[in-house]
Amino acid sequence: MRMVDLIQKKRDGEQLTTEEINFIVESYTDGTIPDYQVSAWLMAVYFQDMTEKERADLTMAMVSSGDQIDLRAIEGIKVDKHSTGGVGDTTTLVLGPLVAAAGVPVAKMSGRGLGHTGGTIDKLESIAGFHVEISNEQFIELVNKNKIAVIGQSGNLTPADKKLYALRDVTATVNSIPLIASSIMSKKIAAGADAIVLDVKTGAGAFMKTLEDSRELAKAMVNIGNNVGRKTMAIISDMSQPLGFAIGNALEVKEAIDTLKGEGPEDLTELCLVLGSHMVYASGKADSLEDARQLLIKLMNNGEALDKFKLFIEAQGGDSSVVDQPERLPQAKYKIELPAKEDGWVAEIIADHVGTAAMWLGAGRATKDSQIDLAVGIMLNKKIGESVKAGESLATIYSNQEEIEQVKEELYRSILLSQEQVAPPILIHEEITE
Amino acid sequence: MRMVDLIQKKRDGEQLTTEEINFIVESYTDGTIPDYQVSAWLMAVYFQDMTEKERADLTMAMVSSGDQIDLRAIEGIKVDKHSTGGVGDTTTLVLGPLVAAAGVPVAKMSGRGLGHTGGTIDKLESIAGFHVEISNEQFIELVNKNKIAVIGQSGNLTPADKKLYALRDVTATVNSIPLIASSIMSKKIAAGADAIVLDVKTGAGAFMKTLEDSRELAKAMVNIGNNVGRKTMAIISDMSQPLGFAIGNALEVKEAIDTLKGEGPEDLTELCLVLGSHMVYASGKADSLEDARQLLIKLMNNGEALDKFKLFIEAQGGDSSVVDQPERLPQAKYKIELPAKEDGWVAEIIADHVGTAAMWLGAGRATKDSQIDLAVGIMLNKKIGESVKAGESLATIYSNQEEIEQVKEELYRSILLSQEQVAPPILIHEEITE
Repeated sequence: MRMVDLIQKKRDGEQLTTEEINFIVESYTDGTIPDYQVSAWLMAVYFQDMTEKERADLTMAMVSSGDQIDLRAIEGIKVDKHSTGGVGDTTTLVLGPLVAAAGVPVAKMSGRGLGHTGGTIDKLESIAGFHVEISNEQFIELVNKNKIAVIGQSGNLTPADKKLYALRDVTATVNSIPLIASSIMSKKIAAGADAIVLDVKTGAGAFMKTLEDSRELAKAMVNIGNNVGRKTMAIISDMSQPLGFAIGNALEVKEAIDTLKGEGPEDLTELCLVLGSHMVYASGKADSLEDARQLLIKLMNNGEALDKFKLFIEAQGGDSSVVDQPERLPQAKYKIELPAKEDGWVAEIIADHVGTAAMWLGAGRATKDSQIDLAVGIMLNKKIGESVKAGESLATIYSNQEEIEQVKEELYRSILLSQEQVAPPILIHEEITE
Repeated sequence: MRMVDLIQKKRDGEQLTTEEINFIVESYTDGTIPDYQVSAWLMAVYFQDMTEKERADLTMAMVSSGDQIDLRAIEGIKVDKHSTGGVGDTTTLVLGPLVAAAGVPVAKMSGRGLGHTGGTIDKLESIAGFHVEISNEQFIELVNKNKIAVIGQSGNLTPADKKLYALRDVTATVNSIPLIASSIMSKKIAAGADAIVLDVKTGAGAFMKTLEDSRELAKAMVNIGNNVGRKTMAIISDMSQPLGFAIGNALEVKEAIDTLKGEGPEDLTELCLVLGSHMVYASGKADSLEDARQLLIKLMNNGEALDKFKLFIEAQGGDSSVVDQPERLPQAKYKIELPAKEDGWVAEIIADHVGTAAMWLGAGRATKDSQIDLAVGIMLNKKIGESVKAGESLATIYSNQEEIEQVKEELYRSILLSQEQVAPPILIHEEITE
């Protein structure tokens, strides 16, 4: 098999066989095919797309390129959730304890990563003593006992995807549905989930800006999952503004606690109920989505979800008293309001820019070696559709620096007012199950 | 400027600026942009094409990447001819002396290269003593004195094109009109011609198999030439069978001599008259194409074309007695006929396969280090449309080996007979001047 022939085959719109895709992925991973052939092939894929079968083959070839997590020792149907990323997305912190309280085993492997705020592990580390350095055996024991545990990413998961992603990043081939979908799905499948619930974001703050693109990506991922034997569904949710109010690590933990008590922001609560219902239903812990939803609401109201969060924190060495006393979380030195300059309605909150402002405060990592400040961040006080009077606070900035003119300016550029009334955005656009 | 942005721009179908194309070509040539980005860009070009302006810019960027031949010391309008390649194409050997006899300065830089037979220099080296190792000064002096000289390729012409071509070859991006056209034109322009006459081959034995593709390539090259200030025109000529009868080095020299006397194969003669007329007209040595044609016919008939060939040979150290005594050219040990197996009409002569058979005999180089046997080759005795009786010779094989079963089999597979009468192919399909 010669790579140049496979590039040409894809260039000419033909379907590659399983053997051919395996050859590409294996040979690229072991270095016998050079970058310059793979980048030409990626660009051909960008233009010619991949069939459902090719996408599934590519996904499984990447899964096979490295370690695969074996979760068979965990009882029950393991359901993983994945979000395509957004700003102020606290759903993972809420959903873990919430669905665990419903009996769904949550065996979460998580990373730190770059971005506007830290990853799930960084956020949880706002809680004194909490740590994810546990052995695989402890991890499995904890999930079996408490239905929830989080472990840091270890091992060599999907090295082919890592290498391909790095190449895509410098060759303008990131933005390709089959490549995005297989990349995400390979990681989820290698991580061992039996079923996968996807939260595909759409709108200005999302990777996919239009509903059409988001739908295509969601369908692609659902197809791959179901084609390789993992029950997969997706919802398409709004990211035309940040989700909830909090953008920042400790701030999001606090918001997650509120939400687990049923006192969280309306949009975050609703999204968690929708995603959580699908997770509970997929795990077989409810007979219908509606039953699952009612169960989750009950667990919020009767305190069981919050108790599960406390148990989870304690099991991984954390100080669970923060749940009842959130002031024990890291606190920023300064609390600075951002007053509206005029009357109006909030028309836009450009999530990317709000995220950038949070990163400037220190909430996220610009590079792999950046230090995160867990205390800092932004609390939105108004969301799209709300009316504002001049001088009223649009957002509260939690900072450890007093001088934050740049952050304020960025926020003024992010939160745009209209003189006319604006309707709030639709939160859940679609649910895609096949 | 970041290469990834330029890849994306081309990927999205936008036009790159002159500065951007210069950046790509310069940075790739000096190694500051890696292969893997350029191959992705080439594949994006394959799918998104280039505008006329981009094609001209790419051509001139490749011209500027290396040395440019300065022919200003040669009097008159220098006209170069380029053929997109075929099998048994003896036109260069004929056209040089022919148009030189008409007063057109022929300053030919030529190479050896790979292929079915040798390059123009290899063919001329069938003549004892002939050599192209002359200085640039001698070269220019000879052209001014005799109107014709050939020099081996020296210097560092279009290194960007060489590097890009090598990358295209392994990334399935050879077959792209803007890339082919700019590659050919950059070499012609760097070689210093004022005007360029292109012979674009079409048909089974050509790089471009269909008339439509050949027309697109011809138009692309004519556009580039005229856009960068070199008067350029193209004809599209048939390569559904080899041109003339001879495929082989010394055999083609002999055929060129016949043609310069007006006694050559009909198709080769006609093609030389058409191409030659355009060269003479472009050089201002005739007032119309028809005048140019009549002039060339006269030069064939009155012996001046042949005299020019002799003068040219002598000036470069060659034994010009071969012109009157072609038996002094290298002779093969064996002359083996290929008898027709049945009656019929010649329906197809697959030029590529005939060329491969010639290469097996030793007429061409399979690799850069192969030795060429100047004596061997194939003379076709029948061409498409001619009738044949069983036992009549379809072709004569000139070989230095006695055992040539493989060559004969290849030729039988190449020369296909039909039981029904077949029309000969059209020789000149189109002339493209803008």
